[in-house]
Amino acid sequence: MSKRDKQTADLEFVAGNGLIHRRMFLTQGAAMAGSLGLLSATPSHAEPLEIPPWMKAPGSHMSAYGQRSRYEDSVQRVVGGTPGVVGSGVSFTPIEKLHGTITPNSLHFERHHSGVPDIDPDGHQLLLHGLVDRPLVFSMDALMRYPTVTRIQFLECSGNSGTNLGPQAQQAPAGVLHGLMSCSEWTGVPLSILLEEAGVRRGANWVLAEGADAAGMSRSIPLEKMMDDAIIALYQNGERLRPENGYPMRLFLPGYEGNMSVKWLRRLKVNREPTMTRDETSHYTDVMLGGKALILTFPMGVKSLITSPSTGLNLTEPGRYEITGIAWSGAGKIARVEVSADGGNTWAEAALTEPVLSKSFTRFRMAWQWDGGPAVLMSRAIDESGSVQPTREALTREFGERRNYHNNGIQVWSVAARTGEVTNVYA
Amino acid sequence: MSKRDKQTADLEFVAGNGLIHRRMFLTQGAAMAGSLGLLSATPSHAEPLEIPPWMKAPGSHMSAYGQRSRYEDSVQRVVGGTPGVVGSGVSFTPIEKLHGTITPNSLHFERHHSGVPDIDPDGHQLLLHGLVDRPLVFSMDALMRYPTVTRIQFLECSGNSGTNLGPQAQQAPAGVLHGLMSCSEWTGVPLSILLEEAGVRRGANWVLAEGADAAGMSRSIPLEKMMDDAIIALYQNGERLRPENGYPMRLFLPGYEGNMSVKWLRRLKVNREPTMTRDETSHYTDVMLGGKALILTFPMGVKSLITSPSTGLNLTEPGRYEITGIAWSGAGKIARVEVSADGGNTWAEAALTEPVLSKSFTRFRMAWQWDGGPAVLMSRAIDESGSVQPTREALTREFGERRNYHNNGIQVWSVAARTGEVTNVYA
Repeated sequence: MSKRDKQTADLEFVAGNGLIHRRMFLTQGAAMAGSLGLLSATPSHAEPLEIPPWMKAPGSHMSAYGQRSRYEDSVQRVVGGTPGVVGSGVSFTPIEKLHGTITPNSLHFERHHSGVPDIDPDGHQLLLHGLVDRPLVFSMDALMRYPTVTRIQFLECSGNSGTNLGPQAQQAPAGVLHGLMSCSEWTGVPLSILLEEAGVRRGANWVLAEGADAAGMSRSIPLEKMMDDAIIALYQNGERLRPENGYPMRLFLPGYEGNMSVKWLRRLKVNREPTMTRDETSHYTDVMLGGKALILTFPMGVKSLITSPSTGLNLTEPGRYEITGIAWSGAGKIARVEVSADGGNTWAEAALTEPVLSKSFTRFRMAWQWDGGPAVLMSRAIDESGSVQPTREALTREFGERRNYHNNGIQVWSVAARTGEVTNVYA
Repeated sequence: MSKRDKQTADLEFVAGNGLIHRRMFLTQGAAMAGSLGLLSATPSHAEPLEIPPWMKAPGSHMSAYGQRSRYEDSVQRVVGGTPGVVGSGVSFTPIEKLHGTITPNSLHFERHHSGVPDIDPDGHQLLLHGLVDRPLVFSMDALMRYPTVTRIQFLECSGNSGTNLGPQAQQAPAGVLHGLMSCSEWTGVPLSILLEEAGVRRGANWVLAEGADAAGMSRSIPLEKMMDDAIIALYQNGERLRPENGYPMRLFLPGYEGNMSVKWLRRLKVNREPTMTRDETSHYTDVMLGGKALILTFPMGVKSLITSPSTGLNLTEPGRYEITGIAWSGAGKIARVEVSADGGNTWAEAALTEPVLSKSFTRFRMAWQWDGGPAVLMSRAIDESGSVQPTREALTREFGERRNYHNNGIQVWSVAARTGEVTNVYA
């Protein structure tokens, strides 16, 4: 047998073009042994090891607030502004350079309508009023005394993946195509507690949420959602919220389009009807076939994305690769992620990282033997409600070409034969 | 009824001195309603709201790598050096100012023996040799191609909580007393894969792990642990490891004393016996009654800690408080956390934040009605193996007074009547 034949003889292929059974990940080692030898090398000598320069003198001291290695400085959010509008724009999480499920706070995506306000928490308060028995106002100190809950959940801008709605597939890193989403551990006060304390009156169905940014960004939220799993988030990944994530407090609505989780929250008004604010009529509406538009479309659809390989992360030589990515759904837990290496002709089930949490990122992994030929990589997620991530083609057939939001279509990566170059394609 | 009587009439007290049934947290609101009214205030007017200064002009622009609010700058690691030894010392995570379970990377505790090396990943490699069929060397690029796993797990220095082993209870923030522990989402390559690839020979039982710091910090690890759940960690909370956590790669041994998860890992040597390095003989040994010392004591015991209230987080007025803290065990999952407000006379079960993960922080919460009288707060954790967190007194009886490591004794906080001042006491 040739070296490559030996490598692949004991593998359990489960779908076309080299996909390997996820059992490989479950056995942790045994099934991988012997077949990954290409990646490591035989040392020229074992001892004594060469002493690198950084072992020849003491390193730097402990620090009060750590920073990352200077060798990682290139891992950054990509900032995109709206021409002519000060403080309006986005920054994209570089998802192709991250791993696991948590997004570091410094790299959480941004979408602002009038920049990031510099709020003094001692001068900030939250008003709860409208159709309630007792209007209430909460200082920061008061709110910090309330009972809290902690959950790991994603946040996704409803405009995420909008580039792929255009007529031509653009070549950009996965983060620029899909990085208006992040996942954090959020800790905050359940809205239900505050609403019960105020006493919601009969006839109330909606709550207006208003931010303390210069745009006064405002959205209407169903009262039912507010009483279910909505929180006033105070902490993000253990520390207090970052300014660009709503410091000192933000609304957080698990699974709903990001814009509704109003940052720098200063007011909640209980109403009978949605307020029809600028932000829910001029933006964040879905233009349909025939020109009509859907408004007040809240939950984010079931979605997944291969982050590696992806544009810019080219394959270097034939051999074993880990295909990995993330899946999420606004409807609950991810039930299954399937991966194809032959453009959707055959699919195999990926391994999911435990614990699989509701309305959270789920990391999936698939072992793959690339033979050096052409490959077309796709992933599709299925959530616990049974919803299946659609193809771009199916979405276009249903909604037409003018939609700007809620694109949960399958991302297709083409791998070129021999060169291993990865490109974004519409398949 | 007086205002306070009304507040407490519908509460289900479950232990002495004001502890309230955890059901309060499970119902999210209903049970809390009406009884928390003291915290919020009635607004003097509802509309129009005053416009704060930060709403009068656009805020700052999006940024490539975010920083926290300047109003949070005081949340820092407390640095403690070893006099006369350059780069040797610790920094403590300010656990009393954090919430949830994830520790932000910038605030992860530190323990270095010769400072933090500034390693160029292109010049770093890992050698795997000793009792193996094929010695192997891994460049960073090669290792990054291997299959990975992701898990949220704690790391605790075996010297954590050492201050409480002294004869007098010291007054310091909870983080300074117990902050040599943190919890992160770690992503890395299972050791089992690398060891299988190298081919471990008969007679091998231990693996020497050596770091690329100027101390060449070295520990011996049982081969069995290496084949079980040990990983070479590459990512921490989504991004690449921080320098003070071993960039570009570290060993990570879930549940074991932190020192063994060797940072800046450059060498693994498979051996028959433990190497008896300086770090496992002069440090990290447990002096017993009679002067003998235990060595090679690896798993961290079951432990918990109330982070709020705690020293410096004094109560301001009688009323409702959330008692909260964290629990963890090197043996697996936390099964139960009990809280006492009367110095251990009576105990009630705290609510645990889901998901409860193995060898990870579990956040617990307990509702408490403080009547303004004296209170003595304690928490004790029980893990899935049935181990119960011991009192300080029981540990001293068993091990004597000269132990420096593995202190998992119960922390006792005294709350003074009227003033609400919280102090560290030995009860």
